[in-house]
Amino acid sequence: MNSLTPLPPPLPTVRAIVEAALVEDAGRGDLTSEACIPAEAVASAVFRARESLVFSGGLILEEVFRSIDPEVRVERLIRDGERVDAGGAIARIKGKARALLLGERVALNLVQRMSGIATTTRAYVDALPTSSKTRIADTRKTTPLLRPLERYAVRCGGGHNHRDDLSSAILIKDNHIEAAGSVRAAIERAIAYAPHTSRIECEVDTLDELDEAVDAGAEIVLLDNFDDESVAQAVARHGGKVILEVSGGITLARIRRLGELGVDVISSGALTHSVKAADIGLDFEA
Amino acid sequence: MNSLTPLPPPLPTVRAIVEAALVEDAGRGDLTSEACIPAEAVASAVFRARESLVFSGGLILEEVFRSIDPEVRVERLIRDGERVDAGGAIARIKGKARALLLGERVALNLVQRMSGIATTTRAYVDALPTSSKTRIADTRKTTPLLRPLERYAVRCGGGHNHRDDLSSAILIKDNHIEAAGSVRAAIERAIAYAPHTSRIECEVDTLDELDEAVDAGAEIVLLDNFDDESVAQAVARHGGKVILEVSGGITLARIRRLGELGVDVISSGALTHSVKAADIGLDFEA
Amino acid sequence: MNSLTPLPPPLPTVRAIVEAALVEDAGRGDLTSEACIPAEAVASAVFRARESLVFSGGLILEEVFRSIDPEVRVERLIRDGERVDAGGAIARIKGKARALLLGERVALNLVQRMSGIATTTRAYVDALPTSSKTRIADTRKTTPLLRPLERYAVRCGGGHNHRDDLSSAILIKDNHIEAAGSVRAAIERAIAYAPHTSRIECEVDTLDELDEAVDAGAEIVLLDNFDDESVAQAVARHGGKVILEVSGGITLARIRRLGELGVDVISSGALTHSVKAADIGLDFEA
Amino acid sequence: MNSLTPLPPPLPTVRAIVEAALVEDAGRGDLTSEACIPAEAVASAVFRARESLVFSGGLILEEVFRSIDPEVRVERLIRDGERVDAGGAIARIKGKARALLLGERVALNLVQRMSGIATTTRAYVDALPTSSKTRIADTRKTTPLLRPLERYAVRCGGGHNHRDDLSSAILIKDNHIEAAGSVRAAIERAIAYAPHTSRIECEVDTLDELDEAVDAGAEIVLLDNFDDESVAQAVARHGGKVILEVSGGITLARIRRLGELGVDVISSGALTHSVKAADIGLDFEA
Amino acid sequence: MNSLTPLPPPLPTVRAIVEAALVEDAGRGDLTSEACIPAEAVASAVFRARESLVFSGGLILEEVFRSIDPEVRVERLIRDGERVDAGGAIARIKGKARALLLGERVALNLVQRMSGIATTTRAYVDALPTSSKTRIADTRKTTPLLRPLERYAVRCGGGHNHRDDLSSAILIKDNHIEAAGSVRAAIERAIAYAPHTSRIECEVDTLDELDEAVDAGAEIVLLDNFDDESVAQAVARHGGKVILEVSGGITLARIRRLGELGVDVISSGALTHSVKAADIGLDFEA
Amino acid sequence: MNSLTPLPPPLPTVRAIVEAALVEDAGRGDLTSEACIPAEAVASAVFRARESLVFSGGLILEEVFRSIDPEVRVERLIRDGERVDAGGAIARIKGKARALLLGERVALNLVQRMSGIATTTRAYVDALPTSSKTRIADTRKTTPLLRPLERYAVRCGGGHNHRDDLSSAILIKDNHIEAAGSVRAAIERAIAYAPHTSRIECEVDTLDELDEAVDAGAEIVLLDNFDDESVAQAVARHGGKVILEVSGGITLARIRRLGELGVDVISSGALTHSVKAADIGLDFEA
Repeated sequence: MNSLTPLPPPLPTVRAIVEAALVEDAGRGDLTSEACIPAEAVASAVFRARESLVFSGGLILEEVFRSIDPEVRVERLIRDGERVDAGGAIARIKGKARALLLGERVALNLVQRMSGIATTTRAYVDALPTSSKTRIADTRKTTPLLRPLERYAVRCGGGHNHRDDLSSAILIKDNHIEAAGSVRAAIERAIAYAPHTSRIECEVDTLDELDEAVDAGAEIVLLDNFDDESVAQAVARHGGKVILEVSGGITLARIRRLGELGVDVISSGALTHSVKAADIGLDFEA
Repeated sequence: MNSLTPLPPPLPTVRAIVEAALVEDAGRGDLTSEACIPAEAVASAVFRARESLVFSGGLILEEVFRSIDPEVRVERLIRDGERVDAGGAIARIKGKARALLLGERVALNLVQRMSGIATTTRAYVDALPTSSKTRIADTRKTTPLLRPLERYAVRCGGGHNHRDDLSSAILIKDNHIEAAGSVRAAIERAIAYAPHTSRIECEVDTLDELDEAVDAGAEIVLLDNFDDESVAQAVARHGGKVILEVSGGITLARIRRLGELGVDVISSGALTHSVKAADIGLDFEA
Repeated sequence: MNSLTPLPPPLPTVRAIVEAALVEDAGRGDLTSEACIPAEAVASAVFRARESLVFSGGLILEEVFRSIDPEVRVERLIRDGERVDAGGAIARIKGKARALLLGERVALNLVQRMSGIATTTRAYVDALPTSSKTRIADTRKTTPLLRPLERYAVRCGGGHNHRDDLSSAILIKDNHIEAAGSVRAAIERAIAYAPHTSRIECEVDTLDELDEAVDAGAEIVLLDNFDDESVAQAVARHGGKVILEVSGGITLARIRRLGELGVDVISSGALTHSVKAADIGLDFEA
Repeated sequence: MNSLTPLPPPLPTVRAIVEAALVEDAGRGDLTSEACIPAEAVASAVFRARESLVFSGGLILEEVFRSIDPEVRVERLIRDGERVDAGGAIARIKGKARALLLGERVALNLVQRMSGIATTTRAYVDALPTSSKTRIADTRKTTPLLRPLERYAVRCGGGHNHRDDLSSAILIKDNHIEAAGSVRAAIERAIAYAPHTSRIECEVDTLDELDEAVDAGAEIVLLDNFDDESVAQAVARHGGKVILEVSGGITLARIRRLGELGVDVISSGALTHSVKAADIGLDFEA
Repeated sequence: MNSLTPLPPPLPTVRAIVEAALVEDAGRGDLTSEACIPAEAVASAVFRARESLVFSGGLILEEVFRSIDPEVRVERLIRDGERVDAGGAIARIKGKARALLLGERVALNLVQRMSGIATTTRAYVDALPTSSKTRIADTRKTTPLLRPLERYAVRCGGGHNHRDDLSSAILIKDNHIEAAGSVRAAIERAIAYAPHTSRIECEVDTLDELDEAVDAGAEIVLLDNFDDESVAQAVARHGGKVILEVSGGITLARIRRLGELGVDVISSGALTHSVKAADIGLDFEA
Repeated sequence: MNSLTPLPPPLPTVRAIVEAALVEDAGRGDLTSEACIPAEAVASAVFRARESLVFSGGLILEEVFRSIDPEVRVERLIRDGERVDAGGAIARIKGKARALLLGERVALNLVQRMSGIATTTRAYVDALPTSSKTRIADTRKTTPLLRPLERYAVRCGGGHNHRDDLSSAILIKDNHIEAAGSVRAAIERAIAYAPHTSRIECEVDTLDELDEAVDAGAEIVLLDNFDDESVAQAVARHGGKVILEVSGGITLARIRRLGELGVDVISSGALTHSVKAADIGLDFEA
């Protein structure tokens, strides 16, 4: 059902980010518009893709201009998660010219980033073999203070989210294993301790550790920096019984092969930590 | 004098960002450490470059761990703005293992981004001809909510900052020109209106507009999307009389040529809006 | 290992709550102390249980007085999660008398609430049959703005946490089922959509719905307002295969029986939404 | 005049609490609704009492849903301070189903607590003898960060508020007396120091101290943990001349007797620190 | 006892103001110091009065520099509320020169304002007849967002505070009287409604209203814009029975006469809304 | 063109100040209105000048009442920057009487201050010789936390703003000169370091320093505490070549003479740090 569109973070979250961003960029006014643009001048402008991209951030556009001037009208022309070609219109805004100019940069900075994430995620998802069940997932390597927007952008691109933060799920790494004494001990403690709503995930470096983790009760195993051969063996041994997640050294070129190998999840920090902003512009209409 | 190191944003700014980032990633605790790491366990770890990079963010490392536990010790091993090779040590932290693990990701997310910006900026600066007076400058295309850190990172990489925000300097663009009626009218209004501490900058699309802008009193002219040929003509006509800034379509490959042409400033949004995170890791010591 | 004490929320979270609470109660000063207590007067005082209780909140005591005056010394005499009898000492504070009086009420308001939750949770946990594997868990029915402290207090009492918030795990309720069309459809969508780190939980009202939920792939089923007889049947049908959680109408009197029936989780909103503050006082020492 | 209804805290106060609560519970989205509820689905639901209660919090309901989605309609069916029987309707909300579900828990957590306070306060007030002039008052033992809402709820229940915080009135306690040297000295200093808008209140442990306090000019005397016999003597000696307030060990059972004894104020921390949430539910309409 | 010095607002209040002020003035760095002052340069400087003044704000000086750099040392040389002559030293700061320069303006902006208020208040207090019992009091006409500091400064100057805000005491004005129907009705409602810790104050325009207010039970009557003759009559009729407060048209020249007339309180908005900053400078030491 | 009215700070900035001010003054409610004003009572009132003044703050009036109650109507009767005589109407508000009373004081405290600044600035501007090109400018000596409003008020009075904060322009003072070694060295460093959008300003104490500064490339020289004779010499030497700014010891009486001498900028801290509130009242209409 196409009505199951991604649900953006709720307004209070979005508004807090938008207002802080406006204060950062324009909180003391806009000297140039004050000097050159009459107070009563009105204008109309269109956000337009300058390259093919998957858009994310319609709510941002609405909130940026609503925060500046409740009388600016924002008309969304596409939905979040839709692809738009170069030149395609995304949204139209109408209102006081000073208000449009004041919010332009903040709006673009946010939606270019979000659309960059959505577009890259979509490229990863589309690189999977047809009808693959492998998921593309993000990580906690998001831009600080923008995590809710970036995770939403990943979903707009057809990806999935990993755990939200350190308290919303268990992910055992090498330091935990060392402190607990063994993979088994760490997993057992986690099982005893974690909320029952969280699956138990354990990161492993070798196939032996993988076996131990599965045996100890891990439901998800993160294969850290495994090469394709090792991934294949991991799937052969435990595929279908636990969730196998691959991370580390993920590139677009490798996605198809990993999908063919049948891993359940491919998670990549690069989806969010090294994103190229999608090229979107704001064209004023005569 | 090498003591004129860049000055990071003051503590209250840094602390506000760091605390918000910690709340975002770990504000409700750290389930896995709670399950696996004894409360009294202590550890030592080193932030280490995994590729050659220009580091930026020492104060971030201090504040992240000071915010979590005032007893964690952070020893900085290099200064901001220094280059470090792959494998090189950046800082050592010592304290409760739970505290180190809780702050690890936030610290990395911030300094990887900042160091990515510093490293890219440095590459641009180093691409200029020897003893060039051309500057590499950032733009307002920074990550919302992180602008002070990103502008600082640009300076750590040897770059310069453009105006801070819409109220700290004048930059006349096409909409202002259209509203004012002409380049000349817009510049005259800006001269009459702007703080006397701000130079008057005007963006132009053609050499004719450039002539008009200079004639009207612009002190900086932004040559928007000029090709090298047009840049050369602009320098020939007005070099040394006004500050000539080139922006739009800037790539690393083009920097040397632009420097040779003698422009004063090359500004690039990509320094901040499409930055690749520098690869930094945290290695725990036995 | 007794060193695996609960880990309180990190300092930035605690400090934000403590500082807001101090501003609320004392942000404009303390008239009576200003009138009666000399600026240089020092004092010593002991937080003491006035009834048998399980303490939670040592970090709160430290932060309240550190926020008021960094020179106040706070000496913790018991650990969080320990039981203390009536009259037992919890912590000693020493410093300027005005500082101690200014923070007294905020400190008590917070730790009485947290200790009340820990004490009640402990009573529930202790009511379970010996070596029962049943967990006592909280819900999202926490005091708004204090959730991280209350969830921590539940853990101090030997309880477990349910999901943190609406984004950290899946819990399908009647409205979701109705919108999706059936229990099965809702669960299938959730499986397709949820982060792979989240188990899929579904709330059911009848044994038939339970069967359907298990069959559709639910890993946790919340038996809502089931009587003991129905709980027994649920365990008989699906115990050990899925996690069975009982909620609704939970009282201390019923805990033992539910534990004997072998449910996995008993969750109770009353642990946090209707908590009686534990009686703790602050005694000044001569 | 029944139009003198209690005045809730102003919108900025309410909105700050509501938005923080929404961010806490739902700030990163609502996974289950995103998976199961179509974006365009609309619904209607009624907040309904599940037990007899005095309602408080209509403005909360409005603000919770207005914060999530300005297009949700909230229709209040009763006024704050009104009693509603089990099954009685409190308010109806209509709008996007996702918005209604996202705000449900925060709305309930707040109004259940407020209505619990109002209901308990009303029980205390109703326990007083007919046409008694005795007041039921709260204390500073409120939930940190929610004080304005809880004090308002007390007024909705027919109670009165004590001083707001440490700076809005004088209340001399044992530590102040000890520092000043005597009850008399403390009161004299307070008279000299306090704002002229604040009455001078002094807490006493004995009838002798009461005499001294009245003689020194106290306008309110708080009889701390007095038994009924002592209260009777206090009223006999000073009733009508000063305001006599009883606190400590207050139970519902004791209210009538204290009212008959003629004390002016009965203040009870339990009204707010140990409140049982009133049972309110949200019923979706077909 | 001289140790009963005014108690400044608690640290969390002061810190919030100081940090916001630092972010406002220096949150993005200090370009000039970055360009000219070596990172390791240290300096020492003295805050010094440039005119005779009553100082207020020692805690501000400490917090400003502690917020910027915990290693800056602030040595207070006089106490809040002390008079210092032109040239007199107030405090010495030592530390990194960049830190001292970064905080200089914020520190001065705050303590100049506070000391201006303290100095003016002291002038009013000193203008009263010897051993007068008349108080000089502030009003709610304070600078928004700085009220706690300004009220404290009034106390440093020997003045008293009026009510904190709209919720901490009753003050009936003409609109309330009109809505209630009469002075008497308004006062009776206020008596029935107000916290028992608040005295009942009523503003009146005529001697007849004064009589009515006293008769109805007002404990404080604010004589609004009364001339000296009317004030004298007011004192003759009701002095000693109620607290008589004069406000409106208060000038320093009139204080002595009002004190001789025996009013209890003279309140003046000008103490805070039209304050001249006291002249304080920061002298760097060689 | 009269449509180039000053542009106030954007809504998020204004709203943050307004909401904080409302919380400060009325965040816990309004006891007196609660006691005396029926919930449903409506009223109409007019903000009116009580002396001749230049108004600033129309947006404040709108936001104060919109924040309290979205249904209050605010009708602005004059524009910011207009002069209004004593008795002249500024704006009319209509709505719930409780809402009007709750916001009255905050609204007045803000617009009285802003209008006081605008009025004083206008007096300075009007004191300049006819068709003088001299500017009246503010400084960083603004009220902490209110800088954006105060700078806007200066513009409403016909004045200009100096640099926003420490990061938006260069201003070299004696400490920078001393650290750099000489005026020339400091200016050279600043030229090398500052954003190209910032002019280089240097403060000097003598004519010799002025010569050195100009020679070194300063574009603005601040003549600190120069007497008229020295100002005349400065203009004779460098007028028209650099921007000459006079500051220190500026009084209204001196403005005309300084304008005649031909300085470019007169900057005065007193415009903001010692402003007398303009007298504005709120008159309720029958």
